[in-house]
Amino acid sequence: MVKWLVSLALVLAIALPGVARAEDGYDLWLRYRPVEGEWHKAYDPAVTALVVQGGGATIAAAAAELERGVKGMLGHRLPRTGSVAADGAVVIGTPATSPIVAALGLPLAGLGDEGYLIRSVTIDGRRATVIAANGEKGVLYGAFRLLKAMQLRERIDALDIADAPKLKLRVLNHWDNLDRHVERGYAGQSLWDWQKLPLHLDPRYTDYARANASIGINGVVLTNVNANAEILKPIWLEKVKALAGAFRPYGIRVYLTARFSAPIEIGGLKTADPLDPAVAAWWKAKADEIYRVIPDFGGFLVKANSEGQPGPNDYHRTHADGANMLADALAPHGGIVMWRAFVYAAENPEDRAKQAYTEFQPLDGRFRDNVMVQVKNGAIDFQPREPFHPLFGAMPRTPMMMEFQITKEYLGFATHLVYLGTMWEEALAADTFRPARGTTVADVLETAVDAAAPTGMAGVANIGSDRNWSGSQFDQANWYAYGRLAWNPQGGAEAIAREWIRMTWSGDPATVDAIAGMMMGSHEAVVDYMTPLGLAHLMATGHHYGPGPWVSDLARPEWNPAYYHKADAAGIGFDRSRTGSNAVAQYAPELADRFGSVKKVPEEFLLWFHHLPWDFRVRSSGRTLWDELVVRYDRGVAAVAAMQARWAALESRVDRRRWEEVRDFLAIQREEAQWWRDASIAYFQSVSKRPLPEGHAAPPMPLDHYKAIDNRYAPGN
Amino acid sequence: MVKWLVSLALVLAIALPGVARAEDGYDLWLRYRPVEGEWHKAYDPAVTALVVQGGGATIAAAAAELERGVKGMLGHRLPRTGSVAADGAVVIGTPATSPIVAALGLPLAGLGDEGYLIRSVTIDGRRATVIAANGEKGVLYGAFRLLKAMQLRERIDALDIADAPKLKLRVLNHWDNLDRHVERGYAGQSLWDWQKLPLHLDPRYTDYARANASIGINGVVLTNVNANAEILKPIWLEKVKALAGAFRPYGIRVYLTARFSAPIEIGGLKTADPLDPAVAAWWKAKADEIYRVIPDFGGFLVKANSEGQPGPNDYHRTHADGANMLADALAPHGGIVMWRAFVYAAENPEDRAKQAYTEFQPLDGRFRDNVMVQVKNGAIDFQPREPFHPLFGAMPRTPMMMEFQITKEYLGFATHLVYLGTMWEEALAADTFRPARGTTVADVLETAVDAAAPTGMAGVANIGSDRNWSGSQFDQANWYAYGRLAWNPQGGAEAIAREWIRMTWSGDPATVDAIAGMMMGSHEAVVDYMTPLGLAHLMATGHHYGPGPWVSDLARPEWNPAYYHKADAAGIGFDRSRTGSNAVAQYAPELADRFGSVKKVPEEFLLWFHHLPWDFRVRSSGRTLWDELVVRYDRGVAAVAAMQARWAALESRVDRRRWEEVRDFLAIQREEAQWWRDASIAYFQSVSKRPLPEGHAAPPMPLDHYKAIDNRYAPGN
Repeated sequence: MVKWLVSLALVLAIALPGVARAEDGYDLWLRYRPVEGEWHKAYDPAVTALVVQGGGATIAAAAAELERGVKGMLGHRLPRTGSVAADGAVVIGTPATSPIVAALGLPLAGLGDEGYLIRSVTIDGRRATVIAANGEKGVLYGAFRLLKAMQLRERIDALDIADAPKLKLRVLNHWDNLDRHVERGYAGQSLWDWQKLPLHLDPRYTDYARANASIGINGVVLTNVNANAEILKPIWLEKVKALAGAFRPYGIRVYLTARFSAPIEIGGLKTADPLDPAVAAWWKAKADEIYRVIPDFGGFLVKANSEGQPGPNDYHRTHADGANMLADALAPHGGIVMWRAFVYAAENPEDRAKQAYTEFQPLDGRFRDNVMVQVKNGAIDFQPREPFHPLFGAMPRTPMMMEFQITKEYLGFATHLVYLGTMWEEALAADTFRPARGTTVADVLETAVDAAAPTGMAGVANIGSDRNWSGSQFDQANWYAYGRLAWNPQGGAEAIAREWIRMTWSGDPATVDAIAGMMMGSHEAVVDYMTPLGLAHLMATGHHYGPGPWVSDLARPEWNPAYYHKADAAGIGFDRSRTGSNAVAQYAPELADRFGSVKKVPEEFLLWFHHLPWDFRVRSSGRTLWDELVVRYDRGVAAVAAMQARWAALESRVDRRRWEEVRDFLAIQREEAQWWRDASIAYFQSVSKRPLPEGHAAPPMPLDHYKAIDNRYAPGN
Repeated sequence: MVKWLVSLALVLAIALPGVARAEDGYDLWLRYRPVEGEWHKAYDPAVTALVVQGGGATIAAAAAELERGVKGMLGHRLPRTGSVAADGAVVIGTPATSPIVAALGLPLAGLGDEGYLIRSVTIDGRRATVIAANGEKGVLYGAFRLLKAMQLRERIDALDIADAPKLKLRVLNHWDNLDRHVERGYAGQSLWDWQKLPLHLDPRYTDYARANASIGINGVVLTNVNANAEILKPIWLEKVKALAGAFRPYGIRVYLTARFSAPIEIGGLKTADPLDPAVAAWWKAKADEIYRVIPDFGGFLVKANSEGQPGPNDYHRTHADGANMLADALAPHGGIVMWRAFVYAAENPEDRAKQAYTEFQPLDGRFRDNVMVQVKNGAIDFQPREPFHPLFGAMPRTPMMMEFQITKEYLGFATHLVYLGTMWEEALAADTFRPARGTTVADVLETAVDAAAPTGMAGVANIGSDRNWSGSQFDQANWYAYGRLAWNPQGGAEAIAREWIRMTWSGDPATVDAIAGMMMGSHEAVVDYMTPLGLAHLMATGHHYGPGPWVSDLARPEWNPAYYHKADAAGIGFDRSRTGSNAVAQYAPELADRFGSVKKVPEEFLLWFHHLPWDFRVRSSGRTLWDELVVRYDRGVAAVAAMQARWAALESRVDRRRWEEVRDFLAIQREEAQWWRDASIAYFQSVSKRPLPEGHAAPPMPLDHYKAIDNRYAPGN
């Protein structure tokens, strides 16, 4: 016994790296740290062996993940056995691959291709846990779910979990350029190291795929929506093939962005007119070529006739003409087109918030079956707060895909702690009143046009080469929450935050409560210090880093913050009511009435829908609009200060290195929240000419100081 | 005993991360992995306690490093004691900080500010090891040296090591832009995360400083020589200050690049004429401002009148006028100017290789005492092989700084395994014959103009945000070798490679021999497959990725590969003999005679100095020049194949993850060596019209195929 222990101690000592590495966030929510003693007692007898019969690469990935997780959490190897020979076996598989699973006759019928069932069963008189699914991907998702149960310290001796995703396509959009610059990226360079592909597969590709699979993401658009036709050339497709191979075991398909003018740029044609047979033939041949290289290629994402991108309008064709032409090329191979509705025209004087609806709604029913219309939330852009996009519910015959932005282009980049789960929940839970009260945006997303039609959600990724993947520890939560909401758009942001915290930081209840408190209030805080009361798009030009409400000299009106706030001596806000742009009419009548009425409009959208005098009385507080604005700016800054205090109190509760990083980032956020508050008040006061309410300090510097701040080297531009 | 061991085992088990992380290269040569049993017996009694008396942050850094290294290698904490109370104490300090050190009366006089002495001594009857120096930096360097002794498994019970650097300034030049793009960077983004500075100090800054200190680097130029005046603004200087603070404990000063036109761009002046008193006053005020923020600021590096950069010539002033004006601004604070000699003029028809000498040599003696002229090696650029720069030895009254390029702009980027130590040794060991035979380039560097004058070496860094720092495991060796040669320019490349291998890969003698064999032959291999026999600058346009010998249509003649090889139906090579550009005359007469003679010129510089007919007979082989070229290209490719085979045999000898990365990169190198060989032969054959020698395969594709290869997204451009 002594000898054995000496050996054990030595083995462990040698296995230790020379110097223990601090946690740096690389492991994300898949840390698999050792469980506490009492949980060892609960888990050890329930996880004694792994039974895998047959199956392909995805079953193998599931098995490897179980081994990894058990080794991490319980500290022992998980032996593979050919049958259930003792208590505690974990049996994984599909009825088709595993006779043991098949013999259990489990109720898998309702779980679809990707769902799973985890059940505590008795096999040959022995206690076992089965992870079963109709497809291998379901087995993989189930494996991650069992590991999550252990990470969350759930009991695993009487399991009966059945789950399946509510959307078919759960996709990350990487706005990654071929030179590895990430547009709106705040986490380093693109993960895709193109120069070294296809001969070198960075091990991070696998860890990236594992993380995605753990939250159910099943598709990845590799390239920027501001697309480059080069990616469609054979030399690049070989690189894409290599990535597809790395992701395939994890149930992830690759997609590419298609530059609409590619037939001209790399095809040698004179036109990209979608109704030109030569153009259609070129795309068909290109699709055939892609599928020869990547048989399970997912399809194309297209940004057309938007912000200078080419598109069918260049040839006086509709978006449906363009999308359908590409869809026809992909259809024989089972590929789909995700066609973005984010359009606003250079010469169109219509309220920018209305243009997507105006252009797309009449096209309802005119898209091929394998086209999805991908709609940004909200109607302007990914602002800190916008009402839900009026297209949701307004195109019942068209598969609609939600596009959320995970990367925080307008929400403080990587250093601001802003949990986006609550923002997304707010959008998903919004009642569209279409066809009737009670149909939320989530319901719209989940309701397939027909049984075969696609459903889905897209998230603009916040993932890059930074060691912590997302640019900050807390931005990992947004990747996580996106995946969970794409799986189930009805999910609750707080529950998601809490499970993320337990896996990422600590299971200590007080710590979980404290961090959850920070996260749950964080979105309201950033809205307050950047764009309170329904203001939007007041960020500095180009990079969107910091405030620029004074900017009014850019070439296109809708590029200017002044276009959005319309502040003058009399008041502030964008009149989208019947007396203004009448954007409210794009919503269902009940909402048009609610949003269009100064009395009924939710306060958080007050200035989104209405232009109001500075001395307008705000319902909730009775303050003047001017005073209320100042109060909200200060409330936002105070909320950041409160987060700092909360985090300071956690110093001994979380590991040092990550704690320090968050501490520093909160200090940056505090400084920048103050900057937003001071610059915004300095500017709006120069317009309103009103004194600050009592107890609220004047900005320490004159307006010109804030205008002169130059951040031209801000990342992500 | 059993109980204690159980506890130990549990502690160790809990300390283990959930899943042991594979080695990824982050630890560089400071891995500090546990020593083998027999070495425990040797080292444990020699390292029982640490005695530190007084001292500042640098002594503290030395102590922390010893603790880290001992914990890693020996597995135990190194307790601090106030005195030598038992055998095995390690005493560190200077006579000024430590009474114990002072009492030993050690011979420190000859060691200067940065040298150190490590000696096994007896103190109060107890065996101890003392690390002593005149300055704290010396103590830090000594601490790293003692740890290196253990890493190399040298005996440490009878130590008597005295060492001091032979050059005063040992500087890294980072060509890092303010947007984190690294010009000629193949290792990710800039380490400097400007947006998060000054409030967040990435822990990597400290690890970067540790690595530099371990090899004696004592200065860092943070910014690109293609400079941006913005860095001199107060908001940026605050960020520079934060970095300086992180590096200071490790004996590293920060420098910046000074854009010569900054007085116009950020100073509001109408001119940057160095003789204009307002310009001089602006720079003086700017220097004063910088030193208020960073009291130990190192000084400026300047690229002027070179490749479009502004400079004194714009005002018809000399380089000395420009450098001296900046030097006068820095002198009161002890700062220096490193003024680059890399100049070639847009309209100058003179052989580019001659222009730096022509412009700078006449200025010898006309620079201020705190100016160094920084000379690239070689005279064209950082080619795979060039003869040493003729300015070395030709400006005896001017402090001359060598500029090597560590990043492999012209040597295959990150994926080609090319050890640069041999290339640098070749340059440093070159005999300048100035003032007389036997004075090598290294001697020139080491010979100070007077006792107070600076000496130094600069290396263009290959360091970035990639996890492995340098873009590949083996590129770390070039960072290491650069530091070691800057410390001692007489150092041998093979010895340096071997110590790096032992610390980085394995101490197993057969493994060390195998890797050393790969490294030592690697430079000759890349010369063979890219630019054999003295050819140079045949890389593709802009990014320099891959071959482009056919390029001849760029605006400036010296941007075209055709300018350098001058191949035509009759022959190939650049005539720099007396019958040609007479660049040979810039060398000492003995060398001018040697290089200028077809009979005497070393074969590796044959086509550098001579234009020769295709059927010229090569001395060493008797082959025709054409045949010899083909043979060398194939020899280069074969050498890479041999490296692959050698590496394959090491599969079980080194850790998996790093082994696989190197395997993949060698596969890329093999493919690209073949590409270089095929494209070069295809092109030169189109000119020479000669058949390939027997046994050498024709390029598999026609020349147009190679010309059409488009790598516009290659990194580092």
